[in-house]
Amino acid sequence: MSQLLNNVIEELSKLPGIGRRTALRLSMHLLRMDASAVADMTRSIDRFRQEIRRCRVCNNLSDDEICPICADEKRDHATICVVEQVADLLSIEHTQQYRGLYHVLGGVISPMQGIAPSDLTIDLLIDRIAEGGVKEVILAISTSVEGETTLFYLMNRLREFPEVKVTSIARGIGFGDELEYVDELTLTHALANRRAIE
Amino acid sequence: MSQLLNNVIEELSKLPGIGRRTALRLSMHLLRMDASAVADMTRSIDRFRQEIRRCRVCNNLSDDEICPICADEKRDHATICVVEQVADLLSIEHTQQYRGLYHVLGGVISPMQGIAPSDLTIDLLIDRIAEGGVKEVILAISTSVEGETTLFYLMNRLREFPEVKVTSIARGIGFGDELEYVDELTLTHALANRRAIE
Repeated sequence: MSQLLNNVIEELSKLPGIGRRTALRLSMHLLRMDASAVADMTRSIDRFRQEIRRCRVCNNLSDDEICPICADEKRDHATICVVEQVADLLSIEHTQQYRGLYHVLGGVISPMQGIAPSDLTIDLLIDRIAEGGVKEVILAISTSVEGETTLFYLMNRLREFPEVKVTSIARGIGFGDELEYVDELTLTHALANRRAIE
Repeated sequence: MSQLLNNVIEELSKLPGIGRRTALRLSMHLLRMDASAVADMTRSIDRFRQEIRRCRVCNNLSDDEICPICADEKRDHATICVVEQVADLLSIEHTQQYRGLYHVLGGVISPMQGIAPSDLTIDLLIDRIAEGGVKEVILAISTSVEGETTLFYLMNRLREFPEVKVTSIARGIGFGDELEYVDELTLTHALANRRAIE
């Protein structure tokens, strides 16, 4: 086989979810693309890998020292939404409903995977709140065992600031979920937290 | 959102089968990879797109003017297996059973998609056979309507060489196929072409 083709298949199949067959299909697609479009793509990958930074306030991905969200004076700087990862931040931003700031933990506490609280940006969050001005911290952590552990740990650490309201995003039945297939824990939680219809 | 991140998501989601969500997941994976590994990957893509050539004999992808298969003196140069695309050639090579040469058509005749015989490397194949020395041409074309059209067209063109044996790969029930779910045409063909058990 062509060495050039073999190399590109080897490299692409290192990416998650891409096997050799998909890598070959992608390679053939690269040949159908304009050479300049392929060069644009690889340049954007190289620049991303080399130049991207972490916002020193919230740990979001950023082109500069401070990300556009933290730098935005029009956003509510008194509210911080704590998320596991950048993808979660982007999902919440996509709703266009939240106008506060974020804090990206960089994962969840997982003794099984050897991820301790010190591996996350929890101290950065505590320092940030200690500086004052924060009124509410919203914990938007997933409902996995590790997520619940992280939530519990964070709630304990945040007791240090009794003036700060700590909330968690609502757990319940998602829109479009079939009640029949919803797990028991979620259903129990959704029943206990029922709301009057206005 | 970070411009660097936005750019890489935009570029990656131009690839087939990669939406914005997958592109984001791939981007986050790029950050976890060593910077040098990412640079190796983009370099292999750039080199592949810029330096890959088509073998001037068989139209296979090649690093040089002639591909390693056509250049291999130990292979049977009297047999040519005609395939639609490079992926098909690689699948056949993978069986390690075939020792002849190939001819990559570059697609199939498709009036619907505006692909005429002149868009494929059929003339190159005819010229190649006209040079002499070819004893058998194996047509390994898919069984789609376009594939059958291409097969029929090729068989007509190859009548010019009565000394060359023209064969087609066997159609039948694949290993692991459930007879219950095999389509009628394949089943009819498989029955008509039944073989005595030796």
